[in-house]
Amino acid sequence: MPERKRIIVIGGSAAGPKAAAKARRLDENAEIVIIQKAPDLSMASCGYPYYVGGVFDDRNMLICTPTGEVRDPKFYLKAKGIVARTETEALRIDRQAKTLLIRDLKSGAEETLAYDKLIIATGALPKKPPIPGVELDGISTLQSMGDADYLRDIRDGRQITKAAVIGGGLIGIETCEALQLAGIDITVIEMLPQLLTFLDWELAKLVENHVRAKGANVITDNGIAEFLGENGRLTAVKLQNGTELPCELAVVAIGVTPNVRLAQEAGLEVGATGGLLVNEYMQTSDPNIYAAGDCVEALNLITGKKVHAPYGDLANLQGRAAGENAVLGNAVTFPGTIQTGICKVFDFAAGSTGLSEKAARAAGLTEIETVINASPDKPGFMEGKLLVSKLVVEKSSGRILGAQCVGPGDVSKQLAIWAMAIKARLGVEEMINADLPYAPPFSLAIDHSIATAHLMQNKLKGRMRGISCVEVKKKLDAGERLFILDNRAPEEFDQMRLGIGERLMPLGALRGRLNEMPADKNAEIICFCKISLRGYEAARVLEGHGWKNVKVMEGGVMAWPYPREK
Amino acid sequence: MPERKRIIVIGGSAAGPKAAAKARRLDENAEIVIIQKAPDLSMASCGYPYYVGGVFDDRNMLICTPTGEVRDPKFYLKAKGIVARTETEALRIDRQAKTLLIRDLKSGAEETLAYDKLIIATGALPKKPPIPGVELDGISTLQSMGDADYLRDIRDGRQITKAAVIGGGLIGIETCEALQLAGIDITVIEMLPQLLTFLDWELAKLVENHVRAKGANVITDNGIAEFLGENGRLTAVKLQNGTELPCELAVVAIGVTPNVRLAQEAGLEVGATGGLLVNEYMQTSDPNIYAAGDCVEALNLITGKKVHAPYGDLANLQGRAAGENAVLGNAVTFPGTIQTGICKVFDFAAGSTGLSEKAARAAGLTEIETVINASPDKPGFMEGKLLVSKLVVEKSSGRILGAQCVGPGDVSKQLAIWAMAIKARLGVEEMINADLPYAPPFSLAIDHSIATAHLMQNKLKGRMRGISCVEVKKKLDAGERLFILDNRAPEEFDQMRLGIGERLMPLGALRGRLNEMPADKNAEIICFCKISLRGYEAARVLEGHGWKNVKVMEGGVMAWPYPREK
Repeated sequence: MPERKRIIVIGGSAAGPKAAAKARRLDENAEIVIIQKAPDLSMASCGYPYYVGGVFDDRNMLICTPTGEVRDPKFYLKAKGIVARTETEALRIDRQAKTLLIRDLKSGAEETLAYDKLIIATGALPKKPPIPGVELDGISTLQSMGDADYLRDIRDGRQITKAAVIGGGLIGIETCEALQLAGIDITVIEMLPQLLTFLDWELAKLVENHVRAKGANVITDNGIAEFLGENGRLTAVKLQNGTELPCELAVVAIGVTPNVRLAQEAGLEVGATGGLLVNEYMQTSDPNIYAAGDCVEALNLITGKKVHAPYGDLANLQGRAAGENAVLGNAVTFPGTIQTGICKVFDFAAGSTGLSEKAARAAGLTEIETVINASPDKPGFMEGKLLVSKLVVEKSSGRILGAQCVGPGDVSKQLAIWAMAIKARLGVEEMINADLPYAPPFSLAIDHSIATAHLMQNKLKGRMRGISCVEVKKKLDAGERLFILDNRAPEEFDQMRLGIGERLMPLGALRGRLNEMPADKNAEIICFCKISLRGYEAARVLEGHGWKNVKVMEGGVMAWPYPREK
Repeated sequence: MPERKRIIVIGGSAAGPKAAAKARRLDENAEIVIIQKAPDLSMASCGYPYYVGGVFDDRNMLICTPTGEVRDPKFYLKAKGIVARTETEALRIDRQAKTLLIRDLKSGAEETLAYDKLIIATGALPKKPPIPGVELDGISTLQSMGDADYLRDIRDGRQITKAAVIGGGLIGIETCEALQLAGIDITVIEMLPQLLTFLDWELAKLVENHVRAKGANVITDNGIAEFLGENGRLTAVKLQNGTELPCELAVVAIGVTPNVRLAQEAGLEVGATGGLLVNEYMQTSDPNIYAAGDCVEALNLITGKKVHAPYGDLANLQGRAAGENAVLGNAVTFPGTIQTGICKVFDFAAGSTGLSEKAARAAGLTEIETVINASPDKPGFMEGKLLVSKLVVEKSSGRILGAQCVGPGDVSKQLAIWAMAIKARLGVEEMINADLPYAPPFSLAIDHSIATAHLMQNKLKGRMRGISCVEVKKKLDAGERLFILDNRAPEEFDQMRLGIGERLMPLGALRGRLNEMPADKNAEIICFCKISLRGYEAARVLEGHGWKNVKVMEGGVMAWPYPREK
């Protein structure tokens, strides 16, 4: 090995530059080169939707340091002693010779570089639907600076009036917000029955209701069949059910595929998820080659299964580990992910950490308990905003498996709390007396997360029999006769109600009106209120007086995802 | 024991009502009585400063449910089947007879009530300084609805122009903000060398600087000697150093004492902290008597020592446990506290969880490492705001002992993350790859908390030799000759600089100007920048070129608590 270690990093977005910078800090003498196909480096790609949406106007903010220096090759050379070759493509890895063939995309010149350690950070490529018309003008993704520039121009030009977003995931929703706020008429088209599949249906539906309330159209359960055009330009999208929606722009956001062609051609192993196989040191099947970011697969720390988790934060953490290990040998690990994700949705945020109920069941975990909690993030006098959370735990142990949260309240803090609890493998009992920062400007005296744990504890101890809005709706649709009590005050009932055959029975009146309850003490009674706190108290009263089948509709009116009577 | 269990709760603020409500939900048949001396019940006492400050105008918001029902005795009776006797004093506990003597403060009538289980939640009393003039009109605390009403009237009447806040703790600072925003000229007077003693000095100083920048005066290291008055009304406060400050109002916020007279007279054990001794079931030395809230002492889960921790959230959690155990026998525990606290300070928040460096050393933990991190909470393009954090860990194990955070950024989320990590007894290594919710509207790709852990890891591995601003200042004051490099850009240096003899040496220029560095490779060199990220990189460069004593001034310009040159 030569005296100066030669490290080549392929990919200049998130994981690559992070790995290169970390390597430099650990070895001032190493020769470090970044090979980047795109013209830009170190792009904050998660920021594209906010640039497109006009949250800020200076494109350079996506590629500059916190103090405003643009991270271009000159910056990399001067500040970090790293050679960054942009508009340069990595063509072929020769693992035997430990060389990389590259091509300068401007001059066309090819060159072979020798490496001691190679770090692959080639990212992911946007999926394109294999349908007619996909080559028309007016169809874009939002995965590159080029895409961001293209969509921002459209926004600024205000030349189009209708657009379709294909795919209701994170990027689809963020793109929807960006274009909708620019005054473009948006329809989000999702093939599956819900937006944001990291959420369970009932929480995703609350998000969908919010997106609609903000003026965007949402079509679920219906994929796209064809792009229609005239003179090479998009004019409409045709759905699988035959509907045609006129539009001048379609943004395709149906997910990404790990970009592993180069690695695969070099014979590196690829996992079942399609991502590059790496060990906990971010090392590929070739010990001299590391990989990080959206091109690799990662271990899900809860299920023990490999997943493709293309998140910007993980790319940075993986890059940091890969960079250190490339210099020092396998010194540090990236253990895996609990797949924490969050998304701004107009005035809502929505996110998940760990497993949703759906994901838990899909992973074969059936002995689980779930609970939904709706309550504000702060006191009313501090203008607290609503949070709706769903917690998933293992029934036998109480171990927390996952938490989801949506609403206008401080979703991000809730998810951070649960992410830490899941990472630390805590059980519900350990959340019951969590010691979180309380003052009225920041939370309720019993934080929403702790209250959620309390509800779960009540369920696990058999003190609260919960029923979800979805189950209630199913029973109603099946024609079951339910005895449903709305335990709110008459004024609240007059203002807004579900209209599912419920009787108004204010909690404060209940003890005096027990004679109106079913004579059959085994009758199924369902209680709820605005957030089902009074509903829970009402259920306890009825149980105290001998009724044996009383259920609390979790989350109450605030978690009801279906249309209301008024 | 009679068929209907008789539960009496003394105290109607936070812990008491919570205990009573929990008991009711577990036993619909119990007779539950709350004895409350004040006229109001279930007051959100942590909200008083925001009512005084005019954040909201409806006093009832402090005592109502989230849907606006005032929690008065009628509400308690109807909604919860609980008899709440306000303006009623608990006079004497007869533990043998299991009775409580009470007095109706309106009629003067006395009555003896029998209990099966008693729950003491008598709270804490504000300390008053034992100095002349303390009885003058114009001297208040902010501990009761009456105090809040009094101060709110003063605010609304705008009849006073100058006020003093005695004590720079949580309530002192909150009161300062409330009155200052009402246009009153405020001076905060603190006997100790710093505000907010749950913080280490250097972070408290940043808070102090912010309070001053908002227009309030702060005097530290100087207690109050005397209240001066004319015709029975306050006219000035006299400090221990002789200074007289004219003022028409003084709010005393020098802490609270557990209110344990009643319990002590009944022979219940009181701990060394002055709080009632309880076990993990919130049971006092009499098995039929539980206690909760500000009148008890709690276990510090890190030091294993008892502390008095009068926090509103703990009061609720303790009340919940006491209520359940009073009904079911000792079913649930309240294990203790890590003393998480937070405080809004104008546009800053400031808080701490676990042990500060000072607290750790006071507890005899000397093998500790600390690090300060200054960085924004979100990307620049999302208008991220500064956070300054200090992390304290056990050196040998890396176990996280405490974290503090101040600044205009999202302090509350940072503290929640660290509180979970400390509660779960995590080490730094487990924070390195924490999987937190990332999207640009909510955090940086590497969250501030994770970046703080990375810095700590770098220190523990000997890759970063940190030095605090305080130590640098000490060295300068002692006349040490230091070679100090400001690694920012010339524009930044021109705009603002520390003026401590530092040389401008932009990171990008460093590798080309190594000849300007000290010839002696053992010379002490100190690097910093705005937040000391470039400072750290500069230090790595110098170390890579053979300098052996290079230190990074932690937190950089943003954490410098002393006056700057410009």
